Amino acid sequence: MTDRSPLAPAALPDTPEIAGVTRRVARARYKTWDRCDLTYVELAPGTSVAGVTTQSKCASPEVDWCRAALVLGQARALVVNAGNSNAFTGNRGRHAVEGIAAQVAQHLGCQPSDVFVASTGVIGVPLPLDKAEAGLAAAFAAEPCSWQAAAETIMTTDTFAKVAVTRATIGERTVSLVGIIKGSGMIAPDMATMLGFVFTDAAIDPAWLQAALSAANRRSFSCITVDSDTSTSDTVLAFATGAAGNAPIGSDDDPGADAFRAALDDLCLQLAHLVVRDGEGATKFIRIDVTGAESDDSAHRIGMSIANSPLVKTAIAGEDANWGRVVMAVGKAGEPAERDKLAIRFGETQVARDGLAVEGYDEAPVAAHLKGSEIEIGVDLGLGDGRATAWTCDLTHGYISINADYRS
Amino acid sequence: MTDRSPLAPAALPDTPEIAGVTRRVARARYKTWDRCDLTYVELAPGTSVAGVTTQSKCASPEVDWCRAALVLGQARALVVNAGNSNAFTGNRGRHAVEGIAAQVAQHLGCQPSDVFVASTGVIGVPLPLDKAEAGLAAAFAAEPCSWQAAAETIMTTDTFAKVAVTRATIGERTVSLVGIIKGSGMIAPDMATMLGFVFTDAAIDPAWLQAALSAANRRSFSCITVDSDTSTSDTVLAFATGAAGNAPIGSDDDPGADAFRAALDDLCLQLAHLVVRDGEGATKFIRIDVTGAESDDSAHRIGMSIANSPLVKTAIAGEDANWGRVVMAVGKAGEPAERDKLAIRFGETQVARDGLAVEGYDEAPVAAHLKGSEIEIGVDLGLGDGRATAWTCDLTHGYISINADYRS
Repeated sequence: MTDRSPLAPAALPDTPEIAGVTRRVARARYKTWDRCDLTYVELAPGTSVAGVTTQSKCASPEVDWCRAALVLGQARALVVNAGNSNAFTGNRGRHAVEGIAAQVAQHLGCQPSDVFVASTGVIGVPLPLDKAEAGLAAAFAAEPCSWQAAAETIMTTDTFAKVAVTRATIGERTVSLVGIIKGSGMIAPDMATMLGFVFTDAAIDPAWLQAALSAANRRSFSCITVDSDTSTSDTVLAFATGAAGNAPIGSDDDPGADAFRAALDDLCLQLAHLVVRDGEGATKFIRIDVTGAESDDSAHRIGMSIANSPLVKTAIAGEDANWGRVVMAVGKAGEPAERDKLAIRFGETQVARDGLAVEGYDEAPVAAHLKGSEIEIGVDLGLGDGRATAWTCDLTHGYISINADYRS
Repeated sequence: MTDRSPLAPAALPDTPEIAGVTRRVARARYKTWDRCDLTYVELAPGTSVAGVTTQSKCASPEVDWCRAALVLGQARALVVNAGNSNAFTGNRGRHAVEGIAAQVAQHLGCQPSDVFVASTGVIGVPLPLDKAEAGLAAAFAAEPCSWQAAAETIMTTDTFAKVAVTRATIGERTVSLVGIIKGSGMIAPDMATMLGFVFTDAAIDPAWLQAALSAANRRSFSCITVDSDTSTSDTVLAFATGAAGNAPIGSDDDPGADAFRAALDDLCLQLAHLVVRDGEGATKFIRIDVTGAESDDSAHRIGMSIANSPLVKTAIAGEDANWGRVVMAVGKAGEPAERDKLAIRFGETQVARDGLAVEGYDEAPVAAHLKGSEIEIGVDLGLGDGRATAWTCDLTHGYISINADYRS
């Protein structure tokens, strides 16, 4: 329906197999479309799991289910449904999730709480359990598939499949991390995220994996926004099969803990950026660096205020060097700021300093920067050492077109 | 440049003269346009003034000036510049405001602090004092003008002039209130507002006028949003000339205090609605009633979360009964909410109750309601007695078109 985002990477990365992770996809036909829309991932016994989920007060039953299961820290399977989020569907929605978990548990001979479920799509329509059951049966019988096929199957309004890869050395072993993710509207994760799944063959204790994932989330998914709208279904899960045979990581002092944490941070940031690059209607990828704030948290909130401003985002869409709108977005953030200490940069060009335009400001290099597809905005508050980076996309006619007739 | 909003009222109201208020307009030519862009309002000696201004940390020097002058409670003149907000312009901006106040003070033989100044337009370009001075000189020499001419002269991207009228009886006297206001983007006043001016011939003590205006603001300007972007220049000022000769109101117990307060509330709400009706690109006027929240403040924040959601606003633009997006916006508001107690109404039709779609939900009446231009959304949280109403407009291609090339 929509063309591939102009910000999409040229190709998928070279993606290794992760021992202990087997993917299969099937057609559950949650919508009237001819594509796979059910992803089933089987995980080796002993796989650790960690997760972060939406802060929405109207979370989907899938989110409720995952939260309860995460407490136990073990996973044997993941099921992802695309085309119906099953959110706000009462008992019928809960019943559908329980039915999916029970069917997989019976197939694998495991506990239902070892089965993680996530769904994405329209809100308010109960997920049809009969379609899920038939889809799962088809998936059980299907051949294993590629990472690309799985990444394509979890898509909704996404225009390209999103896969990221990193590696880390733990003792003598090199472990791999592969992540897949989908967006691409209702994206303002704020301490949680959209549907993203990370797989590694490293051996990791679930509690430590949770701490590492939560930290990575704060620096990646929580720093992006497409449209300021936080979904009811945001979920990121990380699965560690342990098949690499490294000495398990259970604390920050264990060998390889720093390396794994850095690799996980890198992977989550790659995935978060891919979501922004497929933001609905996006034509520009925008990085916003905030420095000199009173604290890192304050810098983060100022960065997100800029990233969420429709006037900033439409100015970038129009390649208009209207930096006054950045001033506005700093001013409305509700955070400590002093007008007469504020400095603003577009690309490499300082445009304002000490509360007004720089002497002899020349708009030409800024205009040239804005014609590109990778935009950088720098804001210095001049107050302290707090810093943060936020990422977003521009706001275009494409966003309106996609969302004014999404259901029809 | 843009067609008149389809939500504009058919005609201006019948607008009475307010004794002690004389308006004049002139061409200061702040932009390359052939229209009046400087409004000069002379106020009779003894006029009381009250005001509310933006909470932005990057407020314009005009806002700083008005805040300082409001402490004194007296006004002799108002100057409004359209086409340049003078915000974020450092010493040069402050100098321009001081120059305008000094010129008017000399003309009238009053103190500079009796002169109120407001400017609206692009941020970051110092207001040219020479143009202001020439414009003021022309205004001093001009014939008094109509309310309509003044309302037109303060416009920027507005597509129609905005005037509202109410009356109140104080003792034996009937007093009149006339307000003019302008929008129409960067509108999310949140405890402050865009440029609006209220004039009455009532005799009112400034402190009581301030309390009444602040209360009216909380129920009107603070409950509207066009695009969630709070301006650096938001200002509402209320002037009371006292020419009606009523016994002055200085406390809630004075005769007519309730009547005047009700009239001021009504006037501010009319003005706030006019701003929404001229929201950039608006085709639908949306009223959101929140009930059953834990408190009125909580209801307000939930209402504003819905009103600011681009996905709700694009759904309404597309006449799409996608009520799941209302669920999402309730969930992300960060306020107490329980999914399984939530009820949602579109127009007269209940669409969801107890956390899921109502039994046998028929979309036809909702679809019919959405084809109109006056949309009502009702949300009941089922938690307490807190209630609030928010107003907004839809988000359309028109908003993108206006804002992706505003400066050019």
